[in-house]
Amino acid sequence: KAGWSDVDIRAVDTARVLAADAVQKTGNGHPGTAMSLAPAAYLLYHNVMRIDPADPHWLGRDRFVLSCGHSSLTQYIQLYLSGYGLELDDLKALRTWGSLTPGHPEVGHTTGVEITTGPLGSGLASSVGMAMAQRRQRGMFDPNAKKGSSPFDHHIWVLASDGDIMEGVTHEASALAGHQELGNLTVIYDQNTISIEDKTEISFSEDVGKRYEAYGWNVETINWRGDGNGSTYVEDVDALLAACERSRSASRPTLIILRTIIAWPSPTKQDTGKSHGSALGDAEIAGLKEALGFDPKKTFEVGRDVITHTRRSLKERAKAAKKEWDVDYKAWRKANADGAALLDRLVAKELPAGLDKAVPSFPADAKGLATRAASGKVLTALADVVPELWGGSADLAESNNTTMDGQPSFIPTGKQTREWSGGPYGRTLHFGIREFGMGLILNGIALQGLTRPYGGTFLVFSDYMRAAARLAAIQQLGVTFVWTHDSIGLGEDGPTHQPIEHLAALRVIPDFDVVRPADANETAAAWVAILRNDRPAGLCLSRQALPTQDPKVAKIANVAKGAYILREASTGTPDVILIATGSEVGLAMSAAEALEKGKIATRVVSMPCREWFERQSKSYQEKVLPTAVKARVSVEAGVPMGWRELVGDAGEIIAIDHFGASADAATLFREFGFTPEKVVAAAKKSL
Amino acid sequence: KAGWSDVDIRAVDTARVLAADAVQKTGNGHPGTAMSLAPAAYLLYHNVMRIDPADPHWLGRDRFVLSCGHSSLTQYIQLYLSGYGLELDDLKALRTWGSLTPGHPEVGHTTGVEITTGPLGSGLASSVGMAMAQRRQRGMFDPNAKKGSSPFDHHIWVLASDGDIMEGVTHEASALAGHQELGNLTVIYDQNTISIEDKTEISFSEDVGKRYEAYGWNVETINWRGDGNGSTYVEDVDALLAACERSRSASRPTLIILRTIIAWPSPTKQDTGKSHGSALGDAEIAGLKEALGFDPKKTFEVGRDVITHTRRSLKERAKAAKKEWDVDYKAWRKANADGAALLDRLVAKELPAGLDKAVPSFPADAKGLATRAASGKVLTALADVVPELWGGSADLAESNNTTMDGQPSFIPTGKQTREWSGGPYGRTLHFGIREFGMGLILNGIALQGLTRPYGGTFLVFSDYMRAAARLAAIQQLGVTFVWTHDSIGLGEDGPTHQPIEHLAALRVIPDFDVVRPADANETAAAWVAILRNDRPAGLCLSRQALPTQDPKVAKIANVAKGAYILREASTGTPDVILIATGSEVGLAMSAAEALEKGKIATRVVSMPCREWFERQSKSYQEKVLPTAVKARVSVEAGVPMGWRELVGDAGEIIAIDHFGASADAATLFREFGFTPEKVVAAAKKSL
Repeated sequence: KAGWSDVDIRAVDTARVLAADAVQKTGNGHPGTAMSLAPAAYLLYHNVMRIDPADPHWLGRDRFVLSCGHSSLTQYIQLYLSGYGLELDDLKALRTWGSLTPGHPEVGHTTGVEITTGPLGSGLASSVGMAMAQRRQRGMFDPNAKKGSSPFDHHIWVLASDGDIMEGVTHEASALAGHQELGNLTVIYDQNTISIEDKTEISFSEDVGKRYEAYGWNVETINWRGDGNGSTYVEDVDALLAACERSRSASRPTLIILRTIIAWPSPTKQDTGKSHGSALGDAEIAGLKEALGFDPKKTFEVGRDVITHTRRSLKERAKAAKKEWDVDYKAWRKANADGAALLDRLVAKELPAGLDKAVPSFPADAKGLATRAASGKVLTALADVVPELWGGSADLAESNNTTMDGQPSFIPTGKQTREWSGGPYGRTLHFGIREFGMGLILNGIALQGLTRPYGGTFLVFSDYMRAAARLAAIQQLGVTFVWTHDSIGLGEDGPTHQPIEHLAALRVIPDFDVVRPADANETAAAWVAILRNDRPAGLCLSRQALPTQDPKVAKIANVAKGAYILREASTGTPDVILIATGSEVGLAMSAAEALEKGKIATRVVSMPCREWFERQSKSYQEKVLPTAVKARVSVEAGVPMGWRELVGDAGEIIAIDHFGASADAATLFREFGFTPEKVVAAAKKSL
Repeated sequence: KAGWSDVDIRAVDTARVLAADAVQKTGNGHPGTAMSLAPAAYLLYHNVMRIDPADPHWLGRDRFVLSCGHSSLTQYIQLYLSGYGLELDDLKALRTWGSLTPGHPEVGHTTGVEITTGPLGSGLASSVGMAMAQRRQRGMFDPNAKKGSSPFDHHIWVLASDGDIMEGVTHEASALAGHQELGNLTVIYDQNTISIEDKTEISFSEDVGKRYEAYGWNVETINWRGDGNGSTYVEDVDALLAACERSRSASRPTLIILRTIIAWPSPTKQDTGKSHGSALGDAEIAGLKEALGFDPKKTFEVGRDVITHTRRSLKERAKAAKKEWDVDYKAWRKANADGAALLDRLVAKELPAGLDKAVPSFPADAKGLATRAASGKVLTALADVVPELWGGSADLAESNNTTMDGQPSFIPTGKQTREWSGGPYGRTLHFGIREFGMGLILNGIALQGLTRPYGGTFLVFSDYMRAAARLAAIQQLGVTFVWTHDSIGLGEDGPTHQPIEHLAALRVIPDFDVVRPADANETAAAWVAILRNDRPAGLCLSRQALPTQDPKVAKIANVAKGAYILREASTGTPDVILIATGSEVGLAMSAAEALEKGKIATRVVSMPCREWFERQSKSYQEKVLPTAVKARVSVEAGVPMGWRELVGDAGEIIAIDHFGASADAATLFREFGFTPEKVVAAAKKSL
């Protein structure tokens, strides 16, 4: 039983009133859910979750995910009541410039927020990644401890809304969570059946509980609505607490369907779409305050007894939990010196020494190999050196070369297959054909904090997971998206599978690095640079073999700069510069040879990552692309957009601005104008 | 009962052998599913579907959707056997340059293909749109006919794979199909439990039937595998036929779970991932042929009796069905002169006359209104004039202004809500919070051929539905995506909701028009131009009010050209040109005024659609943007990428290259540098 005192109940009602007041003051926002979910949120912070406001990054803390991010007040008010650092003035500054209380929760911006949410479905999907990471981390550090006894045991708690449940990505992630038997995950689904178009019945009538049972989840339903009519509304927090406690020791993920009335107990706007995303208005708020015994003339009214109680009681609860955990943690450190050293390195966000030496080097070779194949070799070489690195593919392991040779699959023991062995603490991830889910799960893994995830699919399907890449960028997570089959060079699968616009479309995402290595050595170097940067990156790799360039030039120091002189003009001063990426670098090298035969001094710049190059000093940029050299040609098997910036008015752009076709790669490159002759002609035109 | 003769069975086995041979000849492709699904596909073409190879665009035909598009041979071989125009040489040319048999089926390229598929989930999701469109079309033309008696009645048949079922978008579309009670939709789900990573159990263990029951579908399971072991494999086509026939008269969509063995009866590669996406090899194919009584030394062996029988029997069946339908159709035309006239117009892909006059005109007004609000008024004005136009929103009707005032909702009668009334033949669509599903459903509606669909969400969530926009572009469908809240101007919802990179990211999609009107009149003009073009377009609209410019200039004739001179320089010869789109046009106008005060002759070019402008004559382009004027400034509240092409080396770009923030719009525009002063300074720098 929750055992709430009158002051706890007053605290919950205070949360409702603060939500209404804050939205009213700003003039916009989402009051309804913050009001009706106030008891559930308070219960989580004060009775359920193992957290410590004084140590918000505590290794052993439970995680809280507000998947319905529009209801950010649900979290902000609890952070205020719990003592995470938010004060009344912060709530008053809701959704205003520079405030700690932006429209949607932002990790790294507001203490106590674990994840940036808002785009519906994303929080729930990423929570599955958090739960997977918790299990993997436990497996890395404390695999033999009894369940619940390890300092690495903790639980993921999610509040989700009708919108989250409708989104396709929660299907993907929830199906995988059920498959993975993630007993460390509890989703409280606020089934208030109201969204922006009012009653969700207009578009949403599925049996959600049955659907989640089909995924293999435990499903519990707690119906505060009674017969659905507000007159019988009873917020039975004891029942919710009991369900939460059951879920903590479950062997499968739990969905708690909590049937609420949005904006309860707002007198006329409860249970309506009007209370979802608009200020309630002064009259309605006055009615609300009267109903709850607050002074309708006051705003942001918080009793001193309330705030004193909520902060003190949580502090005491946290202290006790922390003390208990510290004993376990110290014992673990003592017994696991190697593990403790590794943990300290990971907490410090440091990489192991000797990364440069760990990756393979490939001799120059005209035949070469596909960069996806090179990437597979690099990952295998890194396996023992970088234990925090793990990942897999959305059912394209063999095509994406995302498996580190010999590493076990991350899979319940009973779900191993003839092709894949492993266990619950394994390392090779199998996402199924669920690209967007994969992307958000990768984000969740990175948010969990100790490991470094990657996940693969075809580059064309970056479209499916684009919103995940964007959220990785917004949150600045060290996630690597491995996107292979990165051009028409994939050949016969045709236009639906050939990325044309994707390199450009990904480059426009702010704070996201698009990396397209030209050969095996650039691929190895790219992995090292990506790991060192610890930023979101998309690694775009070829299906087809690419010639291996001189390893003394295509090396980490150069690749990490984003662009470098792969081949200097014979005279030392170029007449023309060819700028190429990925599979087109070899083409540029052939063209350069032909140009030089014609006495045109030609420099080839390999540009594996524009974003990295843009972060270099102006002097380095000038060295690689001297302003004086106006004759420039870019060569990339993608749309032209973006290249004018680099080649200038006088430059030429070799690109493809239409969909591809189904044929072998050699035919496509020839038919679509990616030939040395075309590059030579463009260079001459540019001169 | 199917009543297959020996020659029918031989035809099915011929299909298996052709699939193996075709992939082997090309050296790559997907033989396994085409082999094991051969009986199901043959049954559909020869016993189930109402189709006529001689009239592939027959208005009354059933539709076939191969959602597992990688198994294109499943369809190509049936098109060959059925007499749709494909011959053996086409099968031999599988996946080669210029062939009629590309890697994945392409509508408009191969006769008999109704939809381009390949990206998993997309076919199934679009089939839901086809089923919705069938119901809407029936409602427009023949609402009172008894079920099954109307020439507008037909059925949608889908073959789907494990991958389709895993994808999030099929969750979204299937949930909506169940909600909409689409009895005209049957999905045969080929549950072969093999994907590229071999046994799907590695990532996929949900109870699919239960999940679809939760959506409100009829679910039938037909288990050809028996106990799962190949030795008891029985292809019971009679059971499948009976399930198909039941589904044709159902009042809800039907999922037939067909448990098969992939690549059956390939001797050693059946039931393995190796048979999914690779050539089987000569030895394996020899074994297959021996097992089926074919000569292992021959390739592409088709008995003359087989091809004669399959084409003739289907021809006869088609003739009978067509005859029956013609009677109904003629009777309907006779009784419905107005309907017939409308139908003829729609079949001819013509628009009604007087579209220019039908849309409202807005007087110049410094305060103006939001372009999303203008769009709502335009849609309402078009409602009676363009009956084929219909659409809705992914739960943002009020925000997207996508509802034509007074039009009924498209919804089963029992699912009307207090806010939305309507019926099964209604016009206002409610997609729920399912953006990607919405996008693919819109494509399916457009593919159905008679109506013109649109669907709305926030521009930032174009990321969720990007793969749908791409498929609309590949298929050149007349779909309009209404994307509102198109910049930081949406304000307080903050970075997760503020599109920054989206305009650029959408512009890079080939054959897709990104339209961003500057005011109410440009919005009206944009709708007219979009309808006339009948191409995929994204209409990007503001949340905030925008000043209404001179309606005599911001008019259809100008807007349809993609860019035009909104304000000419006082001297008639500009010193500088400001190029702006959407909400930044007003800003450019203010800046121009300031520049002119400083004696700098300034032209303002409004550019609502770059793609339309690029399709104009060089002379028109030169008129608007004379080469001689090098001083140019672009102004758009999005990333800079792409603008260098238009402003040149000497130009300046006013843009935003980082994520937004949560605050009111005015603050954001000011803080992020969208002010007349900044534009003036940039113009001076450019001079």
